[in-house]
Amino acid sequence: MITVALPKGALLKDSIGLFKGVGLDFSAFLDSANRQLQIEDPTKTAKALLVRAQDVPVYVEYGQAQLGIVGYDVLREKGSQVASVVDLQFGGCRMSVAVKKSSPYSRPVQLPPHSRVASKFVHCASEYFESIDLPVEIIPLYGSVELGPITGMSEAIVDLVSTGRTLQENGLVEIEVLFQSTAQLIAHPLSYRLNSDGLNELIAQVRSQILVAV
Amino acid sequence: MITVALPKGALLKDSIGLFKGVGLDFSAFLDSANRQLQIEDPTKTAKALLVRAQDVPVYVEYGQAQLGIVGYDVLREKGSQVASVVDLQFGGCRMSVAVKKSSPYSRPVQLPPHSRVASKFVHCASEYFESIDLPVEIIPLYGSVELGPITGMSEAIVDLVSTGRTLQENGLVEIEVLFQSTAQLIAHPLSYRLNSDGLNELIAQVRSQILVAV
Repeated sequence: MITVALPKGALLKDSIGLFKGVGLDFSAFLDSANRQLQIEDPTKTAKALLVRAQDVPVYVEYGQAQLGIVGYDVLREKGSQVASVVDLQFGGCRMSVAVKKSSPYSRPVQLPPHSRVASKFVHCASEYFESIDLPVEIIPLYGSVELGPITGMSEAIVDLVSTGRTLQENGLVEIEVLFQSTAQLIAHPLSYRLNSDGLNELIAQVRSQILVAV
Repeated sequence: MITVALPKGALLKDSIGLFKGVGLDFSAFLDSANRQLQIEDPTKTAKALLVRAQDVPVYVEYGQAQLGIVGYDVLREKGSQVASVVDLQFGGCRMSVAVKKSSPYSRPVQLPPHSRVASKFVHCASEYFESIDLPVEIIPLYGSVELGPITGMSEAIVDLVSTGRTLQENGLVEIEVLFQSTAQLIAHPLSYRLNSDGLNELIAQVRSQILVAV
């Protein structure tokens, strides 16, 4: 039986909708009274795990799930050993550098060397500042990264931006986009290669759904 | 003005109660409609930041907050350069090793070498298994660690246990306690040493509150 790892949070509804379109119903996860983290589709042909977005690639990498849905941002940050098989084209957002509106810096290269940059995406942030040869101190945070510049702890942040509302509400402004991100269907490499449990047919069904939607 | 970093989640209510007892009212953070991450006490003598528990030591370490409240578990995991000045004696829980009820292992040393151990507390878990000379593979997860053994991804977990209800509901059983944890009042070392803004008086007031409660 195929197991699918679904991400809690922003991508969950669209992810469940996508699998519904290929005949797998995991909508029990959308019930606010649900406490289960593991359910079977009513047709008993597939199982789903409900996990944190960052944990989706882990379950797929270790083969506990053969498929998973997760944002490109998470894959890029973690560098997981999984196969990204379909760009699902929802959950669009971008990884950006932002500073205070009152900041004198309008491009990241203008930041003084050894500036502090707060981020939940430590790896993406380091990689970017290395690519522009600017030595910075990355301050790892778990949430509310916008507090970094507000409290004066950091000159800049690297964070995921979708509507830009959070930045605006906090008096911050984007000065560079590192990359765009969308939800990805990922697969366990070995299961994909061996086509275990008809995995490739299921992936093809998902892919054709996306083509129809576009 | 003194700034206090308060942790979102389980410790927030008791933390706000504690500061209320020494004349600082941050109860606006308990209002479910509140979206602010930074507020001033009505007497205008102190400020509070509302941040993730794991970020509290970061704000205190960098001196953006002179005081903070956070669980000993987080301090131990992160090894932050902060001064732990008062054991607040609430938020009690323990860091434990747990396995499936059906597991043949009743003590961590019995786990086969190179077993997989899922945990949000990667550092605490590694440190423990090194201390008993058992090589294991730590699988870092962000949430719902109990799924590790349930899905068969890991033989054991290292996680924080308070009532034990989550373990029980998921058919897991504790086989070792690594350490006990309670909420700690932490201070920025330099501000503490220099007694900036009467920090030491405030700490003494908090300490005497705890002594009264015990």
